[in-house]
Amino acid sequence: MDERPIGVFDSGVGGLTVVKALREQLPHESIIYIGDTARVPYGTRSQATIARFAREIAERLLTQNVKALVVACNTISATCLPSIAALSAVPVVGVIEPTIESALRLSSAKHIAVIGTPATIRSAVYERGLQAREPGCRVLSMTTPLLVPIIEEGLKDHPVVALMQETYLSPLKREPHVDVLILGCTHYTLIHERVQSFLGRRIHVLDSARPTAAAVEQMLRAQGLAATRNHATQIYFTSDDPEKSMQIARDFLGADLELRRLELG
Amino acid sequence: MDERPIGVFDSGVGGLTVVKALREQLPHESIIYIGDTARVPYGTRSQATIARFAREIAERLLTQNVKALVVACNTISATCLPSIAALSAVPVVGVIEPTIESALRLSSAKHIAVIGTPATIRSAVYERGLQAREPGCRVLSMTTPLLVPIIEEGLKDHPVVALMQETYLSPLKREPHVDVLILGCTHYTLIHERVQSFLGRRIHVLDSARPTAAAVEQMLRAQGLAATRNHATQIYFTSDDPEKSMQIARDFLGADLELRRLELG
Repeated sequence: MDERPIGVFDSGVGGLTVVKALREQLPHESIIYIGDTARVPYGTRSQATIARFAREIAERLLTQNVKALVVACNTISATCLPSIAALSAVPVVGVIEPTIESALRLSSAKHIAVIGTPATIRSAVYERGLQAREPGCRVLSMTTPLLVPIIEEGLKDHPVVALMQETYLSPLKREPHVDVLILGCTHYTLIHERVQSFLGRRIHVLDSARPTAAAVEQMLRAQGLAATRNHATQIYFTSDDPEKSMQIARDFLGADLELRRLELG
Repeated sequence: MDERPIGVFDSGVGGLTVVKALREQLPHESIIYIGDTARVPYGTRSQATIARFAREIAERLLTQNVKALVVACNTISATCLPSIAALSAVPVVGVIEPTIESALRLSSAKHIAVIGTPATIRSAVYERGLQAREPGCRVLSMTTPLLVPIIEEGLKDHPVVALMQETYLSPLKREPHVDVLILGCTHYTLIHERVQSFLGRRIHVLDSARPTAAAVEQMLRAQGLAATRNHATQIYFTSDDPEKSMQIARDFLGADLELRRLELG
Protein backbone atom coordinates (compact mmCIF):
# COMPACT_ATOMS: atom_id res chain seq x y z
CA MET A 1 0.00 0.00 0.00
CA ASP A 2 1.17 3.45 -0.91
CA GLU A 3 -0.53 6.68 0.09
CA ARG A 4 1.36 8.93 -2.37
CA PRO A 5 -0.86 10.72 -4.90
CA ILE A 6 -1.32 9.80 -8.54
CA GLY A 7 -0.24 12.58 -10.92
CA VAL A 8 -2.74 13.14 -13.71
CA PHE A 9 -2.28 15.63 -16.53
CA ASP A 10 -3.86 16.95 -19.69
CA SER A 11 -3.51 19.80 -22.16
CA GLY A 12 -6.54 21.38 -20.48
CA VAL A 13 -9.46 20.31 -18.35
CA GLY A 14 -10.79 17.52 -20.58
CA GLY A 15 -8.66 15.05 -18.60
CA LEU A 16 -11.00 15.61 -15.67
CA THR A 17 -13.32 13.08 -17.36
CA VAL A 18 -10.58 10.53 -16.57
CA VAL A 19 -10.25 11.89 -13.00
CA LYS A 20 -14.01 11.45 -12.60
CA ALA A 21 -13.69 7.77 -13.53
CA LEU A 22 -10.62 7.40 -11.27
CA ARG A 23 -12.49 8.87 -8.30
CA GLU A 24 -15.41 6.50 -8.86
CA GLN A 25 -13.23 3.45 -9.34
CA LEU A 26 -10.46 4.24 -6.82
CA PRO A 27 -11.95 6.37 -4.05
CA HIS A 28 -8.95 5.85 -1.75
CA GLU A 29 -6.47 7.36 -4.19
CA SER A 30 -5.18 10.92 -3.85
CA ILE A 31 -4.73 12.85 -7.09
CA ILE A 32 -2.70 15.85 -8.24
CA TYR A 33 -4.00 17.15 -11.57
CA ILE A 34 -2.32 19.63 -13.91
CA GLY A 35 -4.22 21.07 -16.90
CA ASP A 36 -2.22 23.30 -19.26
CA THR A 37 -5.05 25.76 -19.95
CA ALA A 38 -2.56 28.52 -20.87
CA ARG A 39 -1.52 26.52 -23.95
CA VAL A 40 -4.59 24.35 -24.69
CA PRO A 41 -5.44 22.94 -27.24
CA TYR A 42 -2.50 20.64 -28.03
CA GLY A 43 -4.34 18.60 -30.68
CA THR A 44 -3.72 21.02 -33.53
CA ARG A 45 0.01 21.50 -32.71
CA SER A 46 3.05 19.66 -34.03
CA GLN A 47 4.52 16.58 -32.38
CA ALA A 48 7.68 18.41 -31.25
CA THR A 49 5.76 21.22 -29.57
CA ILE A 50 3.37 18.80 -27.83
CA ALA A 51 6.32 16.75 -26.55
CA ARG A 52 8.07 19.85 -25.18
CA PHE A 53 4.96 21.05 -23.34
CA ALA A 54 4.11 17.57 -22.02
CA ARG A 55 7.59 16.82 -20.67
CA GLU A 56 7.50 20.08 -18.74
CA ILE A 57 4.25 19.09 -17.00
CA ALA A 58 5.41 15.53 -16.30
CA GLU A 59 8.55 16.92 -14.65
CA ARG A 60 6.48 19.21 -12.45
CA LEU A 61 4.36 16.28 -11.27
CA LEU A 62 7.42 14.12 -10.61
CA THR A 63 8.76 16.76 -8.19
CA GLN A 64 5.50 16.30 -6.22
CA ASN A 65 6.38 12.74 -5.15
CA VAL A 66 3.68 11.05 -7.20
CA LYS A 67 3.60 7.23 -7.35
CA ALA A 68 2.36 7.08 -10.95
CA LEU A 69 1.64 9.35 -13.90
CA VAL A 70 -1.63 9.17 -15.80
CA VAL A 71 -1.55 10.92 -19.17
CA ALA A 72 -5.25 11.80 -19.34
CA CYS A 73 -5.01 13.16 -22.86
CA ASN A 74 -5.24 11.28 -26.14
CA THR A 75 -3.08 13.79 -28.00
CA ILE A 76 -0.17 13.54 -25.54
CA SER A 77 -0.57 9.76 -25.14
CA ALA A 78 -0.62 9.33 -28.92
CA THR A 79 2.36 11.51 -29.70
CA CYS A 80 4.88 11.26 -26.84
CA LEU A 81 4.14 8.58 -24.25
CA PRO A 82 7.57 6.94 -24.73
CA SER A 83 9.42 10.21 -24.05
CA ILE A 84 7.40 10.74 -20.86
CA ALA A 85 8.02 7.15 -19.76
CA ALA A 86 11.74 7.70 -20.39
CA LEU A 87 11.97 10.58 -17.92
CA SER A 88 9.75 8.98 -15.25
CA ALA A 89 10.95 6.67 -12.47
CA VAL A 90 7.32 5.79 -11.65
CA PRO A 91 4.83 3.89 -13.86
CA VAL A 92 3.14 5.86 -16.65
CA VAL A 93 -0.36 5.01 -17.91
CA GLY A 94 -1.80 6.61 -21.04
CA VAL A 95 -5.36 6.52 -22.36
CA ILE A 96 -4.67 4.77 -25.67
CA GLU A 97 -3.75 1.20 -24.71
CA PRO A 98 -6.63 0.67 -22.26
CA THR A 99 -9.09 2.07 -24.80
CA ILE A 100 -7.76 -0.17 -27.56
CA GLU A 101 -8.20 -3.24 -25.35
CA SER A 102 -11.78 -2.29 -24.49
CA ALA A 103 -12.59 -1.60 -28.13
CA LEU A 104 -11.37 -5.01 -29.25
CA ARG A 105 -13.41 -6.72 -26.53
CA LEU A 106 -16.54 -4.83 -27.65
CA SER A 107 -16.13 -5.33 -31.39
CA SER A 108 -17.44 -8.52 -32.98
CA ALA A 109 -16.76 -7.37 -36.54
CA LYS A 110 -13.23 -6.14 -35.72
CA HIS A 111 -14.03 -3.07 -37.75
CA ILE A 112 -13.47 -0.06 -35.52
CA ALA A 113 -13.69 3.69 -36.11
CA VAL A 114 -11.71 6.35 -34.20
CA ILE A 115 -12.22 10.09 -34.00
CA GLY A 116 -9.66 12.44 -32.49
CA THR A 117 -7.66 15.63 -32.81
CA PRO A 118 -5.45 16.12 -35.88
CA ALA A 119 -2.33 15.21 -33.84
CA THR A 120 -3.86 11.99 -32.48
CA ILE A 121 -5.14 10.84 -35.86
CA ARG A 122 -1.91 11.81 -37.65
CA SER A 123 0.04 9.66 -35.17
CA ALA A 124 -1.94 6.57 -36.33
CA VAL A 125 -1.46 5.18 -32.83
CA TYR A 126 -4.96 3.66 -32.62
CA GLU A 127 -4.62 2.07 -36.03
CA ARG A 128 -1.25 0.54 -35.23
CA GLY A 129 -2.28 -0.54 -31.73
CA LEU A 130 -5.51 -2.18 -32.86
CA GLN A 131 -3.80 -4.03 -35.71
CA ALA A 132 -0.87 -5.12 -33.53
CA ARG A 133 -3.31 -6.96 -31.23
CA GLU A 134 -5.76 -8.02 -33.93
CA PRO A 135 -3.98 -8.23 -37.28
CA GLY A 136 -7.18 -8.45 -39.38
CA CYS A 137 -8.77 -5.46 -37.64
CA ARG A 138 -10.03 -2.74 -39.99
CA VAL A 139 -9.72 0.81 -38.70
CA LEU A 140 -11.41 3.96 -39.95
CA SER A 141 -9.74 7.09 -38.55
CA MET A 142 -11.25 10.55 -38.76
CA THR A 143 -10.20 13.89 -37.40
CA THR A 144 -12.88 16.11 -35.82
CA PRO A 145 -11.00 19.28 -34.86
CA LEU A 146 -13.93 21.59 -34.09
CA LEU A 147 -15.38 19.35 -31.37
CA VAL A 148 -12.85 20.46 -28.73
CA PRO A 149 -13.53 24.21 -29.05
CA ILE A 150 -17.29 23.54 -29.25
CA ILE A 151 -17.17 21.64 -25.96
CA GLU A 152 -14.74 24.12 -24.34
CA GLU A 153 -17.14 26.95 -25.21
CA GLY A 154 -19.94 25.19 -23.34
CA LEU A 155 -21.88 24.50 -26.56
CA LYS A 156 -22.34 20.77 -25.99
CA ASP A 157 -26.14 21.15 -26.15
CA HIS A 158 -26.15 23.66 -29.06
CA PRO A 159 -27.28 22.70 -32.62
CA VAL A 160 -23.64 23.14 -33.73
CA VAL A 161 -22.94 19.69 -32.25
CA ALA A 162 -25.59 18.13 -34.51
CA LEU A 163 -24.26 19.99 -37.55
CA MET A 164 -20.65 18.97 -36.96
CA GLN A 165 -21.68 15.39 -36.13
CA GLU A 166 -23.45 15.33 -39.47
CA THR A 167 -20.30 16.66 -41.20
CA TYR A 168 -17.80 14.50 -39.37
CA LEU A 169 -19.71 11.27 -38.66
CA SER A 170 -21.98 10.77 -41.68
CA PRO A 171 -19.31 8.70 -43.48
CA LEU A 172 -19.51 6.30 -40.53
CA LYS A 173 -23.21 5.66 -41.10
CA ARG A 174 -22.35 4.46 -44.61
CA GLU A 175 -19.88 1.88 -43.24
CA PRO A 176 -22.08 -1.18 -42.58
CA HIS A 177 -19.50 -3.19 -40.65
CA VAL A 178 -18.16 -0.71 -38.11
CA ASP A 179 -19.50 -1.72 -34.68
CA VAL A 180 -17.35 0.38 -32.32
CA LEU A 181 -16.47 4.07 -32.38
CA ILE A 182 -13.61 5.17 -30.12
CA LEU A 183 -13.94 8.75 -28.85
CA GLY A 184 -10.20 9.40 -29.05
CA CYS A 185 -10.18 12.66 -27.05
CA THR A 186 -11.09 13.10 -23.38
CA HIS A 187 -13.26 16.11 -24.24
CA TYR A 188 -15.61 14.03 -26.33
CA THR A 189 -16.84 12.19 -23.23
CA LEU A 190 -19.14 15.18 -22.65
CA ILE A 191 -21.01 14.47 -25.90
CA HIS A 192 -20.83 10.67 -25.59
CA GLU A 193 -24.62 10.33 -25.41
CA ARG A 194 -25.29 12.70 -28.30
CA VAL A 195 -22.85 10.79 -30.51
CA GLN A 196 -24.39 7.48 -29.43
CA SER A 197 -27.88 8.68 -30.27
CA PHE A 198 -26.73 10.11 -33.62
CA LEU A 199 -25.15 6.78 -34.62
CA GLY A 200 -27.88 4.49 -33.27
CA ARG A 201 -27.49 1.12 -31.59
CA ARG A 202 -25.47 -0.61 -34.30
CA ILE A 203 -22.30 1.22 -33.24
CA HIS A 204 -21.06 1.08 -29.67
CA VAL A 205 -19.54 4.43 -28.67
CA LEU A 206 -16.56 4.07 -26.31
CA ASP A 207 -14.61 6.78 -24.48
CA SER A 208 -11.27 6.55 -22.67
CA ALA A 209 -12.33 7.41 -19.12
CA ARG A 210 -13.41 4.05 -17.68
CA PRO A 211 -10.94 1.85 -19.55
CA THR A 212 -8.11 4.11 -18.31
CA ALA A 213 -9.32 4.07 -14.70
CA ALA A 214 -9.55 0.27 -14.87
CA ALA A 215 -5.99 0.06 -16.24
CA VAL A 216 -4.71 2.31 -13.44
CA GLU A 217 -6.41 0.12 -10.85
CA GLN A 218 -4.87 -3.00 -12.32
CA MET A 219 -1.39 -1.44 -12.46
CA LEU A 220 -1.57 -0.19 -8.84
CA ARG A 221 -2.61 -3.64 -7.59
CA ALA A 222 -0.02 -5.47 -9.65
CA GLN A 223 2.76 -3.24 -8.36
CA GLY A 224 1.56 -3.04 -4.75
CA LEU A 225 0.98 0.71 -5.08
CA ALA A 226 -2.72 0.94 -4.13
CA ALA A 227 -3.74 3.34 -1.37
CA THR A 228 -5.87 2.03 1.46
CA ARG A 229 -6.50 4.87 3.89
CA ASN A 230 -9.71 6.80 3.86
CA HIS A 231 -8.56 10.38 3.44
CA ALA A 232 -7.89 10.74 -0.27
CA THR A 233 -7.28 14.33 -1.42
CA GLN A 234 -7.47 15.93 -4.83
CA ILE A 235 -5.53 19.00 -5.89
CA TYR A 236 -6.24 20.60 -9.26
CA PHE A 237 -3.95 23.04 -11.03
CA THR A 238 -4.38 24.98 -14.28
CA SER A 239 -1.70 27.04 -16.01
CA ASP A 240 -4.08 29.87 -16.92
CA ASP A 241 -6.46 31.78 -14.64
CA PRO A 242 -8.45 29.09 -12.77
CA GLU A 243 -11.58 31.27 -12.72
CA LYS A 244 -11.78 31.02 -16.50
CA SER A 245 -12.04 27.22 -16.52
CA MET A 246 -14.14 26.69 -13.41
CA GLN A 247 -17.50 25.99 -15.06
CA ILE A 248 -16.23 23.69 -17.77
CA ALA A 249 -13.99 21.92 -15.22
CA ARG A 250 -17.07 21.19 -13.11
CA ASP A 251 -18.85 19.83 -16.20
CA PHE A 252 -15.94 17.50 -16.95
CA LEU A 253 -15.47 16.33 -13.36
CA GLY A 254 -19.19 16.05 -12.70
CA ALA A 255 -18.53 17.59 -9.26
CA ASP A 256 -17.43 20.82 -7.65
CA LEU A 257 -13.71 21.48 -7.32
CA GLU A 258 -11.17 24.14 -6.44
CA LEU A 259 -8.72 25.05 -9.23
CA ARG A 260 -5.32 26.54 -8.33
CA ARG A 261 -2.87 28.40 -10.56
CA LEU A 262 0.48 26.91 -11.66
CA GLU A 263 2.60 28.79 -14.20
CA LEU A 264 3.98 26.80 -17.14
CA GLY A 265 5.90 27.77 -20.26
CA MET B 1 13.61 57.50 -45.02
CA ASP B 2 14.37 54.33 -43.16
CA GLU B 3 14.85 50.92 -44.76
CA ARG B 4 14.60 48.89 -41.53
CA PRO B 5 11.73 46.38 -41.44
CA ILE B 6 8.45 46.76 -39.60
CA GLY B 7 7.89 44.06 -36.97
CA VAL B 8 4.37 42.65 -37.08
CA PHE B 9 3.04 40.03 -34.69
CA ASP B 10 -0.04 38.07 -33.77
CA SER B 11 -1.10 35.12 -31.63
CA GLY B 12 -1.25 33.09 -34.84
CA VAL B 13 -1.59 33.68 -38.54
CA GLY B 14 -4.75 35.86 -38.47
CA GLY B 15 -2.51 38.94 -38.36
CA LEU B 16 -1.52 38.17 -41.94
CA THR B 17 -4.76 39.92 -42.95
CA VAL B 18 -3.10 43.08 -41.62
CA VAL B 19 0.14 42.24 -43.45
CA LYS B 20 -1.88 41.84 -46.64
CA ALA B 21 -3.23 45.39 -46.23
CA LEU B 22 0.26 46.69 -45.32
CA ARG B 23 1.75 45.15 -48.45
CA GLU B 24 -0.95 46.71 -50.61
CA GLN B 25 -0.71 50.11 -48.97
CA LEU B 26 3.06 50.25 -48.33
CA PRO B 27 4.78 48.17 -51.01
CA HIS B 28 8.22 49.59 -50.19
CA GLU B 29 8.17 48.43 -46.58
CA SER B 30 10.00 45.31 -45.41
CA ILE B 31 8.21 43.19 -42.82
CA ILE B 32 9.20 40.63 -40.20
CA TYR B 33 6.17 38.71 -38.97
CA ILE B 34 5.92 36.43 -35.93
CA GLY B 35 2.81 34.30 -35.34
CA ASP B 36 2.69 32.32 -32.08
CA THR B 37 1.03 29.25 -33.54
CA ALA B 38 2.42 27.04 -30.77
CA ARG B 39 0.22 28.86 -28.24
CA VAL B 40 -2.67 30.18 -30.37
CA PRO B 41 -5.45 31.08 -29.57
CA TYR B 42 -4.82 33.89 -27.07
CA GLY B 43 -8.41 35.16 -27.04
CA THR B 44 -9.69 32.64 -24.51
CA ARG B 45 -6.74 33.12 -22.10
CA SER B 46 -6.35 35.45 -19.14
CA GLN B 47 -4.91 38.95 -19.39
CA ALA B 48 -1.75 38.00 -17.45
CA THR B 49 -0.98 35.03 -19.68
CA ILE B 50 -1.59 37.02 -22.88
CA ALA B 51 0.71 39.82 -21.65
CA ARG B 52 3.49 37.36 -20.81
CA PHE B 53 3.33 35.70 -24.23
CA ALA B 54 3.05 39.02 -26.12
CA ARG B 55 6.00 40.69 -24.36
CA GLU B 56 8.15 37.71 -25.28
CA ILE B 57 7.34 38.12 -28.99
CA ALA B 58 7.78 41.90 -28.93
CA GLU B 59 11.23 41.45 -27.39
CA ARG B 60 12.19 38.99 -30.14
CA LEU B 61 11.19 41.49 -32.82
CA LEU B 62 13.04 44.34 -31.12
CA THR B 63 16.28 42.34 -31.31
CA GLN B 64 15.75 42.27 -35.11
CA ASN B 65 16.31 46.02 -35.49
CA VAL B 66 12.74 46.85 -36.47
CA LYS B 67 11.71 50.50 -36.86
CA ALA B 68 8.18 49.98 -35.57
CA LEU B 69 5.99 47.29 -34.02
CA VAL B 70 2.53 46.51 -35.35
CA VAL B 71 0.39 44.47 -32.99
CA ALA B 72 -1.76 42.76 -35.63
CA CYS B 73 -4.03 41.12 -33.08
CA ASN B 74 -7.09 42.55 -31.40
CA THR B 75 -6.69 40.41 -28.30
CA ILE B 76 -3.12 41.58 -27.64
CA SER B 77 -3.88 45.19 -28.62
CA ALA B 78 -6.92 45.18 -26.33
CA THR B 79 -5.26 43.67 -23.31
CA CYS B 80 -1.63 44.77 -23.19
CA LEU B 81 -0.66 47.48 -25.68
CA PRO B 82 0.65 49.80 -22.91
CA SER B 83 3.00 47.14 -21.55
CA ILE B 84 4.37 46.50 -25.06
CA ALA B 85 4.78 50.23 -25.68
CA ALA B 86 6.63 50.48 -22.35
CA LEU B 87 9.30 48.01 -23.41
CA SER B 88 9.70 49.34 -26.97
CA ALA B 89 12.02 52.16 -28.03
CA VAL B 90 10.30 52.27 -31.45
CA PRO B 91 6.68 53.31 -32.19
CA VAL B 92 3.98 50.72 -31.52
CA VAL B 93 0.73 50.61 -33.52
CA GLY B 94 -2.18 48.39 -32.47
CA VAL B 95 -5.33 47.53 -34.38
CA ILE B 96 -7.86 49.03 -31.97
CA GLU B 97 -7.38 52.81 -32.27
CA PRO B 98 -7.34 52.93 -36.09
CA THR B 99 -10.44 50.73 -36.22
CA ILE B 100 -12.27 52.92 -33.71
CA GLU B 101 -11.53 56.02 -35.77
CA SER B 102 -12.78 54.38 -38.97
CA ALA B 103 -15.91 53.14 -37.24
CA LEU B 104 -16.81 56.59 -35.96
CA ARG B 105 -16.33 58.08 -39.43
CA LEU B 106 -18.64 55.42 -40.92
CA SER B 107 -21.38 55.59 -38.30
CA SER B 108 -24.10 58.21 -38.66
CA ALA B 109 -26.18 56.87 -35.79
CA LYS B 110 -23.18 56.58 -33.46
CA HIS B 111 -24.52 53.19 -32.47
CA ILE B 112 -21.79 50.64 -33.09
CA ALA B 113 -21.52 46.89 -32.46
CA VAL B 114 -18.29 44.97 -31.86
CA ILE B 115 -17.59 41.25 -31.97
CA GLY B 116 -14.37 39.73 -30.69
CA THR B 117 -12.71 37.06 -28.60
CA PRO B 118 -13.65 36.76 -24.90
CA ALA B 119 -10.43 38.57 -23.90
CA THR B 120 -11.00 41.49 -26.28
CA ILE B 121 -14.64 41.96 -25.27
CA ARG B 122 -13.86 41.55 -21.55
CA SER B 123 -11.26 44.33 -21.85
CA ALA B 124 -14.04 46.75 -22.98
CA VAL B 125 -11.37 48.58 -24.97
CA TYR B 126 -13.62 49.30 -27.96
CA GLU B 127 -16.41 50.54 -25.73
CA ARG B 128 -14.13 52.88 -23.79
CA GLY B 129 -12.29 54.08 -26.90
CA LEU B 130 -15.46 54.80 -28.87
CA GLN B 131 -17.05 56.66 -25.98
CA ALA B 132 -13.88 58.62 -25.20
CA ARG B 133 -13.98 60.10 -28.72
CA GLU B 134 -17.76 60.28 -29.03
CA PRO B 135 -19.33 60.50 -25.58
CA GLY B 136 -22.88 59.76 -26.73
CA CYS B 137 -21.85 56.70 -28.73
CA ARG B 138 -23.79 53.52 -27.92
CA VAL B 139 -21.80 50.30 -28.10
CA LEU B 140 -23.06 46.73 -28.27
CA SER B 141 -20.29 44.22 -27.53
CA MET B 142 -20.58 40.53 -28.17
CA THR B 143 -18.14 37.65 -27.86
CA THR B 144 -18.04 35.09 -30.66
CA PRO B 145 -15.47 32.55 -29.48
CA LEU B 146 -16.10 29.73 -31.96
CA LEU B 147 -15.37 31.85 -35.05
CA VAL B 148 -11.58 31.65 -34.62
CA PRO B 149 -11.39 27.83 -34.53
CA ILE B 150 -13.94 27.61 -37.37
CA ILE B 151 -11.76 29.83 -39.56
CA GLU B 152 -8.51 28.17 -38.44
CA GLU B 153 -9.97 24.78 -39.44
CA GLY B 154 -10.60 26.06 -42.95
CA LEU B 155 -14.39 25.92 -42.50
CA LYS B 156 -15.06 29.51 -43.61
CA ASP B 157 -17.38 28.26 -46.40
CA HIS B 158 -19.05 25.52 -44.31
CA PRO B 159 -22.68 25.79 -43.05
CA VAL B 160 -21.26 26.06 -39.50
CA VAL B 161 -20.49 29.73 -40.26
CA ALA B 162 -24.16 30.40 -41.05
CA LEU B 163 -25.28 28.57 -37.92
CA MET B 164 -22.91 30.43 -35.62
CA GLN B 165 -23.68 33.77 -37.33
CA GLU B 166 -27.32 33.06 -36.58
CA THR B 167 -26.47 32.30 -32.93
CA TYR B 168 -24.06 35.16 -32.40
CA LEU B 169 -25.38 37.93 -34.67
CA SER B 170 -29.17 37.56 -34.57
CA PRO B 171 -29.43 39.98 -31.60
CA LEU B 172 -27.83 42.58 -33.88
CA LYS B 173 -30.63 42.28 -36.43
CA ARG B 174 -33.07 43.26 -33.70
CA GLU B 175 -31.15 46.50 -32.95
CA PRO B 176 -32.63 49.01 -35.40
CA HIS B 177 -30.05 51.76 -34.83
CA VAL B 178 -26.74 49.93 -35.13
CA ASP B 179 -25.13 50.97 -38.42
CA VAL B 180 -21.55 49.68 -38.04
CA LEU B 181 -20.23 46.29 -36.91
CA ILE B 182 -16.54 46.13 -36.01
CA LEU B 183 -14.94 42.73 -36.68
CA GLY B 184 -12.74 42.91 -33.61
CA CYS B 185 -10.45 40.00 -34.48
CA THR B 186 -8.07 39.76 -37.44
CA HIS B 187 -9.35 36.26 -38.24
CA TYR B 188 -12.82 37.52 -38.97
CA THR B 189 -11.58 39.35 -42.06
CA LEU B 190 -11.84 36.00 -43.86
CA ILE B 191 -15.62 35.91 -43.33
CA HIS B 192 -16.13 39.66 -43.80
CA GLU B 193 -18.33 39.16 -46.87
CA ARG B 194 -20.42 36.40 -45.31
CA VAL B 195 -21.09 38.56 -42.26
CA GLN B 196 -21.93 41.53 -44.49
CA SER B 197 -24.37 39.48 -46.51
CA PHE B 198 -25.95 38.01 -43.36
CA LEU B 199 -26.53 41.46 -41.89
CA GLY B 200 -27.65 43.21 -45.06
CA ARG B 201 -26.91 46.73 -46.22
CA ARG B 202 -28.14 48.58 -43.15
CA ILE B 203 -25.03 47.63 -41.17
CA HIS B 204 -21.56 48.44 -42.48
CA VAL B 205 -19.13 45.65 -41.58
CA LEU B 206 -15.62 46.93 -40.80
CA ASP B 207 -12.44 44.95 -40.15
CA SER B 208 -9.09 46.14 -38.75
CA ALA B 209 -6.80 45.44 -41.70
CA ARG B 210 -7.10 48.61 -43.82
CA PRO B 211 -7.54 51.10 -40.98
CA THR B 212 -4.41 49.69 -39.32
CA ALA B 213 -2.36 49.83 -42.53
CA ALA B 214 -3.48 53.44 -43.02
CA ALA B 215 -2.45 54.30 -39.45
CA VAL B 216 0.97 52.72 -39.97
CA GLU B 217 1.46 54.74 -43.16
CA GLN B 218 0.53 57.96 -41.37
CA MET B 219 2.84 57.21 -38.44
CA LEU B 220 5.81 56.34 -40.71
CA ARG B 221 5.38 59.57 -42.68
CA ALA B 222 4.91 61.72 -39.59
CA GLN B 223 8.07 60.31 -38.00
CA GLY B 224 10.19 60.25 -41.18
CA LEU B 225 10.42 56.45 -41.01
CA ALA B 226 9.01 55.50 -44.43
CA ALA B 227 11.08 53.26 -46.70
CA THR B 228 11.67 54.34 -50.25
CA ARG B 229 13.79 51.74 -51.95
CA ASN B 230 12.30 49.14 -54.20
CA HIS B 231 13.48 45.90 -52.64
CA ALA B 232 11.10 45.26 -49.76
CA THR B 233 11.39 41.82 -48.18
CA GLN B 234 9.01 39.85 -46.00
CA ILE B 235 10.05 37.20 -43.50
CA TYR B 236 7.39 35.13 -41.76
CA PHE B 237 7.94 33.07 -38.60
CA THR B 238 5.60 30.75 -36.69
CA SER B 239 6.34 29.19 -33.31
CA ASP B 240 4.85 25.82 -34.26
CA ASP B 241 5.63 23.67 -37.31
CA PRO B 242 5.29 26.02 -40.31
CA GLU B 243 3.95 23.20 -42.49
CA LYS B 244 0.84 22.99 -40.31
CA SER B 245 -0.17 26.61 -40.92
CA MET B 246 0.84 26.96 -44.55
CA GLN B 247 -2.59 26.70 -46.17
CA ILE B 248 -4.44 28.96 -43.75
CA ALA B 249 -1.53 31.44 -43.81
CA ARG B 250 -1.90 31.66 -47.59
CA ASP B 251 -5.63 32.24 -47.19
CA PHE B 252 -5.02 35.07 -44.73
CA LEU B 253 -2.24 36.71 -46.74
CA GLY B 254 -3.99 36.21 -50.07
CA ALA B 255 -0.62 35.23 -51.53
CA ASP B 256 2.00 32.53 -51.35
CA LEU B 257 4.62 32.77 -48.62
CA GLU B 258 7.42 30.86 -46.91
CA LEU B 259 6.94 30.23 -43.18
CA ARG B 260 9.99 29.67 -40.97
CA ARG B 261 10.17 28.18 -37.48
CA LEU B 262 10.98 30.28 -34.38
CA GLU B 263 10.71 28.66 -30.95
CA LEU B 264 8.82 30.57 -28.27
CA GLY B 265 7.78 29.71 -24.68
